[in-house]
Amino acid sequence: MSGIAATPRPPYVAVIFTNLQTEDLDGYGEMADRMEALAAEQPGYLGFESARSGLGIAVSYWADHEAARAWKAVAEHADAQRMGRERWYSSYRVRIATVEREYGTG
Amino acid sequence: MSGIAATPRPPYVAVIFTNLQTEDLDGYGEMADRMEALAAEQPGYLGFESARSGLGIAVSYWADHEAARAWKAVAEHADAQRMGRERWYSSYRVRIATVEREYGTG
Repeated sequence: MSGIAATPRPPYVAVIFTNLQTEDLDGYGEMADRMEALAAEQPGYLGFESARSGLGIAVSYWADHEAARAWKAVAEHADAQRMGRERWYSSYRVRIATVEREYGTG
Repeated sequence: MSGIAATPRPPYVAVIFTNLQTEDLDGYGEMADRMEALAAEQPGYLGFESARSGLGIAVSYWADHEAARAWKAVAEHADAQRMGRERWYSSYRVRIATVEREYGTG
């Protein structure tokens, strides 16, 4: 289970990925774990949060738009995105946002 | 289960609420349902998505920052936020972001 990401003071970029899955999840779990680990190695990576209860929401945080774009273009990630579109996701939406303010505990 | 929000063309505002719960969830489910319904009645409301698997992520979408701020200040919602801080959430983070771009299916 992922926790609450320890992001720095805003501004930074959030990529909100919302999805519904198909019933063919063969290979999905391994790929999701691999992508989470690979994302964490990228320049400008700030954190990752995910949850699923029917609807899946995954939010990745990046230092700037350039870092978020670069991650989208990483070859192994591009392959994973293609697999997602073709097999694992019945529908999805990706929203790219600039976080301007945050508050909370801790 | 909530689905993928049918948001309009950006820009608009996303409020990303990430949380971990305590073990005292008395009254939580009813309050969450009530807040989701009440939010949908507010000016500038665009949609809502939520998921939980240990970590909970709820994203509400708003026409602009003023609409998101106004929802935060609605009296019944302010009471719910206080209950959350005092009882239901062991930790949480709220991030306010401007969605600049989006893509996906449908």
